[in-house]
Amino acid sequence: MSPIAIQDQIPDNLCYGCGPSNHDGLRIKSFWEGDESICVYQPERFHSAGPPQFLNGGIIATLIDCHSVCTAIADAYRSAGQAIGVEPHRWCVTASLKIDYLAPTPIDRPVELRARVREATGRKRVVECTVRSDGREVARAEVIAVEVPAGWGAAPG
Amino acid sequence: MSPIAIQDQIPDNLCYGCGPSNHDGLRIKSFWEGDESICVYQPERFHSAGPPQFLNGGIIATLIDCHSVCTAIADAYRSAGQAIGVEPHRWCVTASLKIDYLAPTPIDRPVELRARVREATGRKRVVECTVRSDGREVARAEVIAVEVPAGWGAAPG
Repeated sequence: MSPIAIQDQIPDNLCYGCGPSNHDGLRIKSFWEGDESICVYQPERFHSAGPPQFLNGGIIATLIDCHSVCTAIADAYRSAGQAIGVEPHRWCVTASLKIDYLAPTPIDRPVELRARVREATGRKRVVECTVRSDGREVARAEVIAVEVPAGWGAAPG
Repeated sequence: MSPIAIQDQIPDNLCYGCGPSNHDGLRIKSFWEGDESICVYQPERFHSAGPPQFLNGGIIATLIDCHSVCTAIADAYRSAGQAIGVEPHRWCVTASLKIDYLAPTPIDRPVELRARVREATGRKRVVECTVRSDGREVARAEVIAVEVPAGWGAAPG
């Protein structure tokens, strides 16, 4: 496993889910392990679903989205033969997110996400992601990430 | 438009996205308008995507999930001829979430979500949801919500 998180190598990322400098965000950390990326996240108590002992589906979606898109960004650097964060910068955005929720997810222990780029065609990457709690699969997702020019974020909305 | 939010009639909901008593959550409010439900939400600045002027995709997913599932719960009460919150209580969980992100979403103005139950079969409801910013469609989703026994939340995970 690489010792430095993917997110800690991507510059200028204020994202709620994965931006290291967003102090009100989740600040997830993803690491390559071979062709798979891994993220372990301990939810906060206020990230609950309706019942307080389960994790909110929207937070699960946020973890999946950010972990998968950071994996796509890391793969974009890797495919170009660049270390993450080395210029020219690479950036991806989420085109779509499909999640199946398989079981209620306990909030009082970490979740483990594993993602893998299943398919890369031009600017598009299809990323598969699973979420596990205590080894049990609780959600499964497919995320389509699209590479955009590094200046994407600089232009006003 | 009904003057009382769906969420303010559903009892015992600590949800991060839609629980009225989760003070660290988004506390969205959804209202029936005929067969459609509407939610207007003003994001916080820390809900940003990588670039600070855009709204995070995970927060968008959370808004969609909670607005759509609350719509399914309200529809479950309505289909049973009950006012929301009247016993026996109704509850739904998210089985799946499919979101297409169509355009970057500005963070500095409200988003408007509209949801509608497209199909109801047994315990399953298919909910369509759109997200607009300044009238422009920025995301489109299909959420499958499944009705579960009201005691679902009382059992430990």
